[in-house]
Amino acid sequence: MSKVIIETSAKHVHLSEKDLAVLFGEGAKLTEKRPLSQPGQYLCEERVILRGEKGELKNVAILGPTRPDTQVEVSFTDARALGVVPPVRESGDVAGSAKCTIVGPCGEVEIPYGVIVAKRHVHITPEDAEKFGVKDKEIVTVKTQGDRGISFDNTVVRVSEKFQTRMHIDYDEANAAGISGEVEGEIIK
Amino acid sequence: MSKVIIETSAKHVHLSEKDLAVLFGEGAKLTEKRPLSQPGQYLCEERVILRGEKGELKNVAILGPTRPDTQVEVSFTDARALGVVPPVRESGDVAGSAKCTIVGPCGEVEIPYGVIVAKRHVHITPEDAEKFGVKDKEIVTVKTQGDRGISFDNTVVRVSEKFQTRMHIDYDEANAAGISGEVEGEIIK
Repeated sequence: MSKVIIETSAKHVHLSEKDLAVLFGEGAKLTEKRPLSQPGQYLCEERVILRGEKGELKNVAILGPTRPDTQVEVSFTDARALGVVPPVRESGDVAGSAKCTIVGPCGEVEIPYGVIVAKRHVHITPEDAEKFGVKDKEIVTVKTQGDRGISFDNTVVRVSEKFQTRMHIDYDEANAAGISGEVEGEIIK
Repeated sequence: MSKVIIETSAKHVHLSEKDLAVLFGEGAKLTEKRPLSQPGQYLCEERVILRGEKGELKNVAILGPTRPDTQVEVSFTDARALGVVPPVRESGDVAGSAKCTIVGPCGEVEIPYGVIVAKRHVHITPEDAEKFGVKDKEIVTVKTQGDRGISFDNTVVRVSEKFQTRMHIDYDEANAAGISGEVEGEIIK
């Protein structure tokens, strides 16, 4: 059985150094609040506001460290509240995605693109990938159990020795599957 | 191929005659705004506010006609905003479900139970049930296509000559599957 722990990601932002300086002031650094499951990634103390054509989302998490490009990950529920129509994309694939305004205590940044709904994915270590018989970029199904059991088709596999083995979905997907707390899914090829 | 049209239900309320009178005044009648796909069911002009321990949801739809028992159907996203923890249930199965307050222009009703998250289901005519080879109360999977394709396991089949053949899911489920507009799913046994 190829079991994987499923984690639910709330809306969050990855910031470039340049945008961090605009939002939080020249020379500002991100402050780690707690580590995430993926090694080196962390939730920050700092928060921002997202603004779209229809509304705002307050108290939005920033995940560190900074990245080359600013990226905003929301659910379709969040997107409707903002009034934006983001594409479903893998992290980092932001060309031509939706725009929004990010507001910090020292300034705001209008990003012309960078707002996406994350494509559901499984981070897998090379050891687990071999054990599960899956390859990087492979598309698999991950099946959950329970009242609202769902089979998440079109789940992309990402293999790296930098990863911890975890599936990442958003709150729409977690709610649809009735998931709260730590739950495992089964990878089906 | 056993294809079924998938419809997404937003949060809504079914009212008893008694609660209708409290919320909209003695002798009040529901006003049909437009018919729904299930014969005899309709969206009403009237709206209510739902109030939970943490928040309110405004402009909530009422579906007519009145029923013996008042029932409130929300998504888990709605439930979190209200601060209620509803069970996943079939329509009508409300014993021991969550409570909330319904507010109308003439009064408010505190329901001690009646708030549920609808169990995903397929309404099927007896003719289609025979064609698809499924029976009333059977549990099937309904598979969708696309970027966020999902297989909705644990979908309950309901067969009646009063029905039109349609699958009903909520907005969490539609967002999880990337569904907007009219989409078909495939019933898999």
